[in-house]
Amino acid sequence: MTEFVSKIDKEKRKQAAELLRSHYIKLIEQVKREEPPVLEIPKRTLTNTIYDKERKLLLLGPEKLRRNFLDLNEAKKFMQTVLMASIIYEALVNDEYPTIRDLYYRGKHTLILREPSGKSYEENTWDEQDESDDVIVDIEVYTKLLREEMLILSKEKGKVVGDMRIRSGNDVIDLSKMGHGAYAIEPTPDFIEFLDYNAEFVLVIEKDAVFQQLHRIGFWKQYKAILITSSGQPDRATRRFVRRLNEELKLPVYILTDADPYGWYIYSVFRIGSIQLSHESERLATPDAKFLGVSMTDIFGDRSKKPYLTEQERKNFIIKAKDVDIKRALELKSYEWFKTKAWEKEVSMFLEKKSKLEIEAMASKGLKFLAFNYIPEKIKNNDYIA
Amino acid sequence: MTEFVSKIDKEKRKQAAELLRSHYIKLIEQVKREEPPVLEIPKRTLTNTIYDKERKLLLLGPEKLRRNFLDLNEAKKFMQTVLMASIIYEALVNDEYPTIRDLYYRGKHTLILREPSGKSYEENTWDEQDESDDVIVDIEVYTKLLREEMLILSKEKGKVVGDMRIRSGNDVIDLSKMGHGAYAIEPTPDFIEFLDYNAEFVLVIEKDAVFQQLHRIGFWKQYKAILITSSGQPDRATRRFVRRLNEELKLPVYILTDADPYGWYIYSVFRIGSIQLSHESERLATPDAKFLGVSMTDIFGDRSKKPYLTEQERKNFIIKAKDVDIKRALELKSYEWFKTKAWEKEVSMFLEKKSKLEIEAMASKGLKFLAFNYIPEKIKNNDYIA
Repeated sequence: MTEFVSKIDKEKRKQAAELLRSHYIKLIEQVKREEPPVLEIPKRTLTNTIYDKERKLLLLGPEKLRRNFLDLNEAKKFMQTVLMASIIYEALVNDEYPTIRDLYYRGKHTLILREPSGKSYEENTWDEQDESDDVIVDIEVYTKLLREEMLILSKEKGKVVGDMRIRSGNDVIDLSKMGHGAYAIEPTPDFIEFLDYNAEFVLVIEKDAVFQQLHRIGFWKQYKAILITSSGQPDRATRRFVRRLNEELKLPVYILTDADPYGWYIYSVFRIGSIQLSHESERLATPDAKFLGVSMTDIFGDRSKKPYLTEQERKNFIIKAKDVDIKRALELKSYEWFKTKAWEKEVSMFLEKKSKLEIEAMASKGLKFLAFNYIPEKIKNNDYIA
Repeated sequence: MTEFVSKIDKEKRKQAAELLRSHYIKLIEQVKREEPPVLEIPKRTLTNTIYDKERKLLLLGPEKLRRNFLDLNEAKKFMQTVLMASIIYEALVNDEYPTIRDLYYRGKHTLILREPSGKSYEENTWDEQDESDDVIVDIEVYTKLLREEMLILSKEKGKVVGDMRIRSGNDVIDLSKMGHGAYAIEPTPDFIEFLDYNAEFVLVIEKDAVFQQLHRIGFWKQYKAILITSSGQPDRATRRFVRRLNEELKLPVYILTDADPYGWYIYSVFRIGSIQLSHESERLATPDAKFLGVSMTDIFGDRSKKPYLTEQERKNFIIKAKDVDIKRALELKSYEWFKTKAWEKEVSMFLEKKSKLEIEAMASKGLKFLAFNYIPEKIKNNDYIA
C-alpha cells in the first residue's frame, strides 16, 4: 500500500530511523557494560535559553540534564522518553505518518506493577497530551531531529502564491498557477525543493482574508512578491517555509499584521520564536524579518511622517485598547529583542494612545490603497521596524 | 492596475452590479411616484424557516417583511440596508474585493442631525459588526445574490486533493499534482469550473491533521477519492464546493468526524446548514451527505456488528463526555433532521455510554488501519448514517 508514498518521504524516514536508533542504542550499550542507563539531554529551562544578539536568535545554552533510569525521581520520565522514542521508531519503519495526538494515544496505557508480596500498583504511561508532547520535545532536543524530520505530521494553516516553482513529493508545483485559490503548505517544509522563482520579496500577512484580497487583485504579480498567510499565529511549517525563503533565496521578508500587541507577537514568533521552544528557533525563526506594519506612526504620523489615516478615519476605525492588550504590550517591552529604539517608540506610542487598528481598516480605505499605495510605499521608503 | 484580475471576476462583478442596481432602483421609482420607499424582504425568523422534508433542506418560507423608510421604528434599519447596498455596489464597480469586516469599516461613521431649533443629535450608522453583517444577509435574501457573488471575500480553511482538474480564475489546476501540500479552495467556489475527474466519491474530514495523514499515505489514489478537509467547523466556501461535487458530478459525499456531538454538528452543517442562515442552505447544504463515522457502534459494536476497538483500546482511547457534550446531544436530538431511527440510536448510545472518541484514536491503531481498513470497509458495507 506504500506505492503511492513519495520518494523523498522514503529517504527521509530511513535517515531519521537510523539517527534515532543510533542515539538510543547507547542505552543498550550502557546496560551491556552494566552501567545504569542514563540519557543526557540539553536543558530546556529559561536560564538555559539564551538570546544570541549576533544571530538574533533564541538558542538553548550548553547546560544538560542527566536522566537516570535508576533514580526514582527520574524513572518515570526516563521511561516516557524511551517509550515515545520506540513508538516514533516503529512508526518510521512501518511507513506511518503519526501526529503528536496519535503518538499520545499510541503510548497511552496502564502499567501494572506487582510486588513479590502480591501487592500491585497501577501507573499510567501518561494521562494528558502535555506529558507526551513534552517527551517528544526532549527527543527532538536529544537527537537534534525536528519532529517533522521524523515524519510526524500536523495541522497546517499556511498558504502561498507567487511566481515560483517548487518540488513537493513527486510533483512540481507552479505557485503562480493557483487561480483564485492558493497552495496549502505541507507539514514538512524541509522536504520542499525550491526550483526557480521570479520574486523580489516575501510578504507575510497575518490575516487569511486580507491575503485573499491582495492575491485576487494581483498584488504579487504587480510587485514580484511571494505572498504568504499564516492565518493568525503561525504554525511551525509556515515559519520554516518563510525562513527558508529568506535564508536560501536571500529574499527580504516583510510581515503585515494588525496594529496591536497581538500582531507584534505574531511578528515576534516569526522573527525570534517562542521562549518555550527555543530549540526550534535555530531552524524556524527568521531573524531578518521586518515588521512592515500597521505601525502606530502609520496611524498617527510623527514629526517626519504624514499619517496614512485622516482625523476622520482615525475616529471611525480606531479600536480602544483593552486591558489585555496593555498587559501584553508591557510584557513584550521586557523582551530583549524588543529593546530597540524603534520598538520602544512603537510600544510607548501604543501605551500613550491606547489605540489599535486592524489591517481591514486600511483595506476599507480601498483595497487599491492598501495594495498599490500603502504596502509598496512603505517597502520603498524602508518604513518598517527591523 | 486591474490587468491581473481574472476574466471571470470581471464578468461576475458586472452581473452582480446590474442585479443589485435593478433591485434598489425600485426605491428611486417609488420616490419619483411620491410613494414612501419600502423594501420587501423575506423574513429570516425561526417561524419562517421551514425544513423541507422532500429536499431535506432548511429553507426560508414565504413570509416577507416590509421595511418602510417613513416608519420611525424601521428608518434606521432601512438606512443601514441602503447604505450597505450602496457600499457593495461601489465596491463592485470599482473592482474592489471587500470582506465583511471591510464593509463594516467602510460604512461606519457618525451622522449628525440638526433640528431647525439648532439642537443636534449624533447617530452612528452602526457600532458593532453584527449590525452590518445582518444587513448584508438582508441584501443577500432580498437580491437572491450570495455575498460571494457580489465579490465579497472571506477567510478560507478548506483544502482539497484528488484526481481532478478544475479551472479557477485564469488557471487550470490539477488537484492530483499538489505534492505533499494541498489546494486551498477559493472564497468564491461558484466561479470554479469542473473540467475532468477520475473519482468515485468525496471524503470530507473534519480534522486537517488527519487529512494530511490520509493524503500522505495515498488514500485518495488508492480509492479514487476527492479528499477534503474543512479544518473544523466548515466555512461557506467548503460547504458550497462539496455541494457542487455532489450535485453536479453526482459523487457520493462521506463525512468523517470525531465521535461526539460536535462532530455530528459539523456533519449537520454540511448536510442541512445552520438555522440562523437558512437562506444559504439552498445553495450550500448537501442533503445527500452521509455521516461515515466515527459512530458509537464503531466503538462499541451492536448485535449485528463487531466493534472496531478492543476492550483494551476502548479503555485507553475513550474520553468521558462532558456536560457540554450531553447538552449539545440533547439539543441535536430535537432537530427535525436528527429524528431518524439511525440517529436516535446513535444519540441514545452516546447518552447511555457518555463516551466520545477522536479520529486520531483510530489512526493510532495504525494509519493503515484507518486508511485501508476502517474507511473503505465502512463505505463498502454502507455502514454510515444517512
